[in-house]
Amino acid sequence: MNNPERVGFLGLGIMGSRMAANLARAGFEVVVWNRTRARAEELAEKHGMTVAGTPADAAAATGTVITMVVDSPQVEEVLLGPRGAAEGLSVGGLVIDMTTIAPTASRRLAERLRPNGVGFLDAPVTGSAPRAADATLTIMAGGPPEYFERARPLLDAMGRLVLHVGPQGHGSMIKLLNNTVAAVNAAALAEALKAAEGAELDLDSLVAVMGAGSGGSTMLELKAAPMRERSFEPLFKLDHMLKDVRHCLAEARALGVELPLAKRAEELYAKASADGRGDEDFAAVIAVLDGL
Amino acid sequence: MNNPERVGFLGLGIMGSRMAANLARAGFEVVVWNRTRARAEELAEKHGMTVAGTPADAAAATGTVITMVVDSPQVEEVLLGPRGAAEGLSVGGLVIDMTTIAPTASRRLAERLRPNGVGFLDAPVTGSAPRAADATLTIMAGGPPEYFERARPLLDAMGRLVLHVGPQGHGSMIKLLNNTVAAVNAAALAEALKAAEGAELDLDSLVAVMGAGSGGSTMLELKAAPMRERSFEPLFKLDHMLKDVRHCLAEARALGVELPLAKRAEELYAKASADGRGDEDFAAVIAVLDGL
Repeated sequence: MNNPERVGFLGLGIMGSRMAANLARAGFEVVVWNRTRARAEELAEKHGMTVAGTPADAAAATGTVITMVVDSPQVEEVLLGPRGAAEGLSVGGLVIDMTTIAPTASRRLAERLRPNGVGFLDAPVTGSAPRAADATLTIMAGGPPEYFERARPLLDAMGRLVLHVGPQGHGSMIKLLNNTVAAVNAAALAEALKAAEGAELDLDSLVAVMGAGSGGSTMLELKAAPMRERSFEPLFKLDHMLKDVRHCLAEARALGVELPLAKRAEELYAKASADGRGDEDFAAVIAVLDGL
Repeated sequence: MNNPERVGFLGLGIMGSRMAANLARAGFEVVVWNRTRARAEELAEKHGMTVAGTPADAAAATGTVITMVVDSPQVEEVLLGPRGAAEGLSVGGLVIDMTTIAPTASRRLAERLRPNGVGFLDAPVTGSAPRAADATLTIMAGGPPEYFERARPLLDAMGRLVLHVGPQGHGSMIKLLNNTVAAVNAAALAEALKAAEGAELDLDSLVAVMGAGSGGSTMLELKAAPMRERSFEPLFKLDHMLKDVRHCLAEARALGVELPLAKRAEELYAKASADGRGDEDFAAVIAVLDGL
């Protein structure tokens, strides 16, 4: 049942649907499951996949499952809930969770699967929908090296930079830190744009100067335009960013480390969410400054 | 007296000495002045420049002077103090201030020179010593376009991206915003590194993931290594960064714009300065987190 040429894929949202499609293109037999079944059927028809009725069925048919859902409660549900993947996995099975969740949650899930002889990797990704689509995600995996080696062909079919970053939970923690830095950098950019608008500066010049120098960042490249246009079509939802920053703050607190800027950024994103902007792109953090 | 092939250069610190050398290399006759005269003489001998005894003498010999000192009080002193450059400039003279100062200070200096028929550009730079040395600075000039056109051959000899960004003070404001974003991004990076150290993550993996994705920034490229090594040899002094962030906050306040993250970053850099780290590189902001 643990055929490495077969893989179950649980969760076919914006990211998951594109990642599963790349696995099919790379020649893997993909068995998909999604809470809304119609989505799974549409994707399966397009890419020659099989649809499973439950996570347990997808797992039983493949022996290796990837989860790409919203947060740890959803991962727990599809793995350990009724008809969850754990029911379909036997000794030697492997779960690769690519959702961004807290490291403590990753470690807890690994511990609950271990008695069944089922392995676990926390392997979250960076890169939004376009990079999911063209298989150029960055993938950071935490867990025992032997599981990483087994997962590697699957991960290589979805990502460009694929790293084994350390033991269980370290993939999740690196992902949270990356997103938290992105959240702070984006909010700092929003502040600068607000001040520049107030001073009636030429924003093209500001962006060119920052891009050529010490103010440069990936957030500048990706978010300056939507922030200037106040156009918040979601590539990555503000509420998801807020969730990641909060997970990161909680982990850091448990480690006894203070993150003063991340804390301040969390307040700004929380304000934006409370203002009803949680489903917009996180570039909408600039709207909080508009309201100050 | 306003020979565009001659230029006075006032202030030969880490940046100024390299910029003046590039003007000499480009074929300009450079007349240098520095508060510590020995420095001027050493540089002049090396690059075939002339040393002036006072800013007024440098100005009288050239008609066009560049100032590259510490902050607005020093610019004011070398321009308008006793034997300052203004005494040596007549109608048609031009001052190009490349110091990072507040926009309000830039506008005030321009207004004080105007009655004498002397022009003024605020033309600060980004890029530290290595980019000053190889003439690849970014230069953002604010002021009347005719002054920018006159200054352009000089600026082109020192920079790669040379922009006329708008009216008086806009060069200064763009510079302050760039540095403030850099200050926030650097402090956010410091936080992430501290948390990663606390979690015993593989820092090479963290830096690789951030560099490939949404956490990427110029600060990551330049400051991750010195922060990890706690090696704070100054490329840009923490107290200078703190000064720029404070100027930026004051300008924004005057415009009625709040900069919550910049304010929090200012507190961190101020703490580092109070701890005696003002003369170290601003990467030393991580030492504040070490002490929390």
